[in-house]
Amino acid sequence: MLGVHYWELYKIRIEVVLNRNLPTNISPLRAFSAMAKPTTIDLCLGKPYEDMPAELRHIVPELFANTKYRMDYSENAGFAFVRDAFEKHYGLPKNSLILTHGAQEALYIALLSNLNPGDEVLIPNPGFLAYAPMVKMVGAKPSFYFLKKVNENFHYDLELITKKITKKTKVILLNSPSNPTGSELSSTLLKEIIKKFPKIKILSDEVYAELDYEKLYEPLAKKNSSIISVNSLSKSHALTGWRIGWVVSTDPKIYKTLLVAHQYVSTCASVPSQHLANALLSNSFEKIRDHYKNEYQLRRDIFFQALGKLSEKIEKPKAGFYAFLPIPKKYSTSLEFAKALLNKNDILVVPGEFFGTAGKKHIRISYSANVELLRKAGELISKWY
Amino acid sequence: MLGVHYWELYKIRIEVVLNRNLPTNISPLRAFSAMAKPTTIDLCLGKPYEDMPAELRHIVPELFANTKYRMDYSENAGFAFVRDAFEKHYGLPKNSLILTHGAQEALYIALLSNLNPGDEVLIPNPGFLAYAPMVKMVGAKPSFYFLKKVNENFHYDLELITKKITKKTKVILLNSPSNPTGSELSSTLLKEIIKKFPKIKILSDEVYAELDYEKLYEPLAKKNSSIISVNSLSKSHALTGWRIGWVVSTDPKIYKTLLVAHQYVSTCASVPSQHLANALLSNSFEKIRDHYKNEYQLRRDIFFQALGKLSEKIEKPKAGFYAFLPIPKKYSTSLEFAKALLNKNDILVVPGEFFGTAGKKHIRISYSANVELLRKAGELISKWY
Repeated sequence: MLGVHYWELYKIRIEVVLNRNLPTNISPLRAFSAMAKPTTIDLCLGKPYEDMPAELRHIVPELFANTKYRMDYSENAGFAFVRDAFEKHYGLPKNSLILTHGAQEALYIALLSNLNPGDEVLIPNPGFLAYAPMVKMVGAKPSFYFLKKVNENFHYDLELITKKITKKTKVILLNSPSNPTGSELSSTLLKEIIKKFPKIKILSDEVYAELDYEKLYEPLAKKNSSIISVNSLSKSHALTGWRIGWVVSTDPKIYKTLLVAHQYVSTCASVPSQHLANALLSNSFEKIRDHYKNEYQLRRDIFFQALGKLSEKIEKPKAGFYAFLPIPKKYSTSLEFAKALLNKNDILVVPGEFFGTAGKKHIRISYSANVELLRKAGELISKWY
Repeated sequence: MLGVHYWELYKIRIEVVLNRNLPTNISPLRAFSAMAKPTTIDLCLGKPYEDMPAELRHIVPELFANTKYRMDYSENAGFAFVRDAFEKHYGLPKNSLILTHGAQEALYIALLSNLNPGDEVLIPNPGFLAYAPMVKMVGAKPSFYFLKKVNENFHYDLELITKKITKKTKVILLNSPSNPTGSELSSTLLKEIIKKFPKIKILSDEVYAELDYEKLYEPLAKKNSSIISVNSLSKSHALTGWRIGWVVSTDPKIYKTLLVAHQYVSTCASVPSQHLANALLSNSFEKIRDHYKNEYQLRRDIFFQALGKLSEKIEKPKAGFYAFLPIPKKYSTSLEFAKALLNKNDILVVPGEFFGTAGKKHIRISYSANVELLRKAGELISKWY
């Protein structure tokens, strides 16, 4: 019976209405995930399958017990020597980068400092749950553009974006690779978007981009001063609790407003976390990232193999750790099918409709999970089709 | 010549205008402080005089190298076991407390979640520089109430607060002990304010309150559900860079909106910092706090003794590490006098006018400084009177 309480919570939708017409519920995804029993195969996980990299644990005592590592306030943007390490690593001027309290704060201050009340922000559908509430929180209006359905995947599409542009559109939010679909934006399409809408800013959420199995990540903000890149070490290096994120803009005016917002929202990023990021960047950054890339690619392959024939109809994600699967024809909504999967197979997945109306016929699978359980889940899921 | 650049920056006032009519400058205090030369006696410091407590450095390796301390995301409000420790320590229900990224985030989300655009917030004059920009950032309007000048100190005063109350007033911001004046709010006056304005919320910034030399700190939120308390370990335990703050409300409705805002602004407080807070609360919390209390009281006494006769006219602060001194009669503004002190005596202090119009005839001295330098500075300053 564990989980029933949370299920009720989700159905009722907790009526927490912040001032400024804010979110009407505390994450339905959170409530739904909490339905997992101890035996449940949990494929809901929106974070790395393990705590933090073991080898970084060993760095920590030297970093933190040694008084040469100061632990008081850093500059608002982050210690200059840490931003130097980022500059060296990503080839971005250190004065274009602000270290933040995770990608969450980075996204928030990017929205806060670039929008006035009434402005519109284009958000992908399906897309990450938090975007719309965050846009509302800063007094702006979310407007959803569809990703184009090609076979069973969803692709960024210039025409579908263009359809939603109005005079009030100030920001287009892009998330590549996408949560929940895993699909990626091509650099050709990015160029087209910028060319067509030179006055609109691009907010690019790149938190899964280091985990691309085929190509090396480059912050999109390097390509054009109208692009604001957001990233973190949470997914790529399994450092979620350390809250190490950053926001990048090469436009000095945008950068200054970001810094003002950051100063008043959080002062500076956690200083111990800044020291850890610095140690990581100067040492095992690539090694750890490549380790996780391989692990996720392996898990993807095992899961897709277990899906059998079904896998032939679906584009394999090339990055991150999410797959977006179509639901069997006999179900009319993702929530119904997710519920059936839980009741019959004790497998927990995320109903695609949580990510927007376009997700109504899909479920999100996180393959950031145990290999044997993934195989078992894949086999059980394949039997529904 | 070091510092001239920053001085110019201050004079020009950096024109960074965020959208939503935001701050017009990056902290003038920061720019002014940067004028310190290597030889300057710097009494501007708004943080503890030392990095972090040495004995906490020794706890860190065990905490962070041991895999039993999970480092991935905690619950949004903070780990339940850490909030249990706070509950035990402060006698506040753990479900009334949210751990935040320092008091800065706590203040920000308290303003964000309790105000609608157009609402008014009463702010003390003189008062902490960040309050007004933060209020503007969430679309509300700062309205300044004077602290009452009694001899050379500034006191909270019911009449002066009442004068500024309008139908739009939603929040009264209190900061006791006050930055910059060091003055404190009596519990009698607090009761009067609540009684007179039962529908207005109190936002209580208590970041210096653990450092009261005479009495033990109790979060004001314990007294009444209309009070939202904000605090951190930054000042009381010299842990500024760890960014451990919290916000407390015993009103479930206020608590839920705080939690929603926190979730979208920062996800959760830094997890390593949560572990350190937990270790501190279950062990040396009182010992370290009392050590700093004694150190600040000692520094206050040394500084006031060095001031000689001047000290007789001024109320000694009973908490924190700031003193607010009147400027000599021959100067018409605090900025002029601060400049003279820097040029003639190589002493850097903060012009009181940075804290509001009421500070025009005062300077703020931080006695979070080296004892010998404090003595020397006190003697030099006394000669101006």
